Amino acid sequence: MNRRKFFKNGSLFAIGSTFLNPFEGIAKELDFDTLKKNKKAKNIIVIVSDGMSHGTLNMADLYLNRKTGQGSNWLQLYKDNKVSRALMDMSSASSIVTDSAAASSSWGSGFRVKNGSLNIGVNGEEYLPIWQKFKKAGKMAGCVTTVPITHATPAGFCIASKSRNSQDSIAEMYLDLKFDVMMGGGNNYFASDSRKDKRDLYQEFLSKGFAVVKNKKEMFSCDNSKPILGVFYNDGLPYSKDRESSKELIEAIPTLAEMTKCAIDKMKHHPNGFVLQVEAGKVDWAAHGNDIAGLLYDQVAHDEAVKIAIDFAEKDKNTLVIITTDHGNANPGIIYGKDANDNFDSIHNYRQTNEWILNGIGQETRVSQMIERIEYANKTIIKEDDAKEILNFYSNIKLEEGLYNPRHLPFKVLADIQKKYNSVGWISMDHSADYSELAMYGPGSDLLKPFIKNTDLHYLMLKAAEIENNF
Amino acid sequence: MNRRKFFKNGSLFAIGSTFLNPFEGIAKELDFDTLKKNKKAKNIIVIVSDGMSHGTLNMADLYLNRKTGQGSNWLQLYKDNKVSRALMDMSSASSIVTDSAAASSSWGSGFRVKNGSLNIGVNGEEYLPIWQKFKKAGKMAGCVTTVPITHATPAGFCIASKSRNSQDSIAEMYLDLKFDVMMGGGNNYFASDSRKDKRDLYQEFLSKGFAVVKNKKEMFSCDNSKPILGVFYNDGLPYSKDRESSKELIEAIPTLAEMTKCAIDKMKHHPNGFVLQVEAGKVDWAAHGNDIAGLLYDQVAHDEAVKIAIDFAEKDKNTLVIITTDHGNANPGIIYGKDANDNFDSIHNYRQTNEWILNGIGQETRVSQMIERIEYANKTIIKEDDAKEILNFYSNIKLEEGLYNPRHLPFKVLADIQKKYNSVGWISMDHSADYSELAMYGPGSDLLKPFIKNTDLHYLMLKAAEIENNF
Repeated sequence: MNRRKFFKNGSLFAIGSTFLNPFEGIAKELDFDTLKKNKKAKNIIVIVSDGMSHGTLNMADLYLNRKTGQGSNWLQLYKDNKVSRALMDMSSASSIVTDSAAASSSWGSGFRVKNGSLNIGVNGEEYLPIWQKFKKAGKMAGCVTTVPITHATPAGFCIASKSRNSQDSIAEMYLDLKFDVMMGGGNNYFASDSRKDKRDLYQEFLSKGFAVVKNKKEMFSCDNSKPILGVFYNDGLPYSKDRESSKELIEAIPTLAEMTKCAIDKMKHHPNGFVLQVEAGKVDWAAHGNDIAGLLYDQVAHDEAVKIAIDFAEKDKNTLVIITTDHGNANPGIIYGKDANDNFDSIHNYRQTNEWILNGIGQETRVSQMIERIEYANKTIIKEDDAKEILNFYSNIKLEEGLYNPRHLPFKVLADIQKKYNSVGWISMDHSADYSELAMYGPGSDLLKPFIKNTDLHYLMLKAAEIENNF
Repeated sequence: MNRRKFFKNGSLFAIGSTFLNPFEGIAKELDFDTLKKNKKAKNIIVIVSDGMSHGTLNMADLYLNRKTGQGSNWLQLYKDNKVSRALMDMSSASSIVTDSAAASSSWGSGFRVKNGSLNIGVNGEEYLPIWQKFKKAGKMAGCVTTVPITHATPAGFCIASKSRNSQDSIAEMYLDLKFDVMMGGGNNYFASDSRKDKRDLYQEFLSKGFAVVKNKKEMFSCDNSKPILGVFYNDGLPYSKDRESSKELIEAIPTLAEMTKCAIDKMKHHPNGFVLQVEAGKVDWAAHGNDIAGLLYDQVAHDEAVKIAIDFAEKDKNTLVIITTDHGNANPGIIYGKDANDNFDSIHNYRQTNEWILNGIGQETRVSQMIERIEYANKTIIKEDDAKEILNFYSNIKLEEGLYNPRHLPFKVLADIQKKYNSVGWISMDHSADYSELAMYGPGSDLLKPFIKNTDLHYLMLKAAEIENNF
């Protein structure tokens, strides 16, 4: 890479700088950002909104704009012309529609693997995941997420496993890796009473020299000289909207932005730099549930983490920030109609997610209670027939399937009813093949072309940090 | 604008060029494209895929890639790093979800107007449409489309009207404008036997010095010294998929690429340059009908027009090509599942659109005939119950509404049935608020920021062509 060599020649750059001033647009960008972009990325922060369709990005921006007069931090970067952008083809080895394991593995290994597997090639070969490469190169490494820390997206940067579902065993692999920050949900895979083998992984992490934290206060006050394992909930963390409606949850559970800040603060002084993956994992779960309050407010929480990362990178000047999603999910969008604005704005008043609504219903719930519960959660009064339709699922007259729907709750039925009041529609309850939106800020972002394959991102990260891929 | 002044200084540029070589990415772009970008746009071609959601762009690219090994021309421009890109907020004065009239008017006037109106402001003020501005500045001007040439998208660049629905009167306005190329469908608004006032507009266009052409042969052999009115069908042109299945239609009706080529050839020698709008209007109609064969193959037809425009612009070096959509529609996407690849690939075998299928059914159609018709059109054998469900709409037991569905045909029901076999889902049968994908090639494309408002495009076009906005 000869671009750095060039910068040693200060006088030539001075000429170039004079030369560039008269330009607009790209030239302006070069004028301000050349030094920043055309140098080595000491740190890399990858921020993933899992399962974010274009409509999800769009709705979060519109929601914020209509509520506060200012759109999302993500799109503000576009308005300020601060980033490189691309569309990214996320196909896996087995399908044009990827799952999160194959998606994360494509970035993690530089190879397309089959859906469901983590950094295991189509012929069984095991790839060294990218955060291990960076760790070997002397950097600190970490992941924070709102789903279990053993879930597909963080795991794809850290470990190799035939199945993403082996979360018990993925937790054990983390013990051996000894990465510097691993935080999110997933108590089920660490606690002796929920693990199949009854091992107390927390004790093992402590024995191995980790600090183990289980709530926000512990996270912020923990010993920064040790690697941190933070596990704040049994499975995925509560949705942002449900969290903010509960004093108890606000006190116990950190936001994604808070975890991101903590992780950066812990690693930012490392002389060789750090790499950090940040995942808004429940954006995907909300899309699987067609749960608009889950989706929108978790996307906003993701956007707050974007701000933390960009604020740090702007000061630091040595950090590449990569903002993207691993695939579309349910392709939600606001639908045309004379009341589209008011309907979409009604979501401002939502107090709770659909997960909260449906988990509070049972066979004993009366129609009037059903209506009252939705009125409380959405400030919307639904019709009796609609309430009855929902309740049919609790008497097992009907069932709904779904990836994150073990109780067969009627997420689709509720979303269809809500559509009449909030104008938001969904194509399905699963991933889509849409190309992913990708933005990059800082040194290395000049390497991005406007259309890339998922696997290209692996090599781009190594190249930006000038790490030889000879592991 | 001082960027041009700079280029007069050849020696300085030589220094800059040496300076820039060591860079990658943006610098490379500057190295190859600076001269091209940082000069005046003599010609502008705007190519709109009407109602193209991100998923439509994505599916057309995947379809082409899987069929031919090469993706779409649009995304090839990204792979080759040849264009500037943006997301564009298309909100109208009345809604976050625009219609095509307000969308085209935002580009046409530089103001947001209410849905349904064409270049008429919220207080009734009439704006001068952009193609009239360019015409006054001495350029040739034209529009070609696959819907009536009097339809919202071309009309928004040409005329002002309180209602997009006044297509009879819009045809009359075109007579006065005397633009150089106006071609598409819309015989209903020109022919004396279908116009309410029984005027023979064709005769009036001829009297005013136009060449009037009504089929492909006439179009290609027409007198290039005269302005051309080309009207090839009563309403919108047939869908590309239905056209290619009919020898008669292939002979009679030009493709969008053919109209684009004809329009460019007619105007390219004009010393002051030209402006041309190209619209794949039936991509929107297909999305309103959740009609995958209509959508996909008309998006491919749009993509062939992109190639015509880019091939011309690459040789010409003075042409700004703008490729975009006016809004999302139905947010289609390929849905996750073990058969997603094969299901999506089954669309390769489709012979006809859903419009063709449903228009060939009547009250007399038997279940077996219904099944055979879909088997012929889609190479898919549907179930008897599904066939019966469709037929219920012909006995008026059920009705479907929709913007382009005067006969209340069961488009939604058919799409829901097809989803099981082709894995394509839709959120609705109407427009969505998703931000539009926008790409620009050639001189002026350096003016594009990564996120713009629809109205910004109006001023960008004027600025790129260095036309003062003092009309």
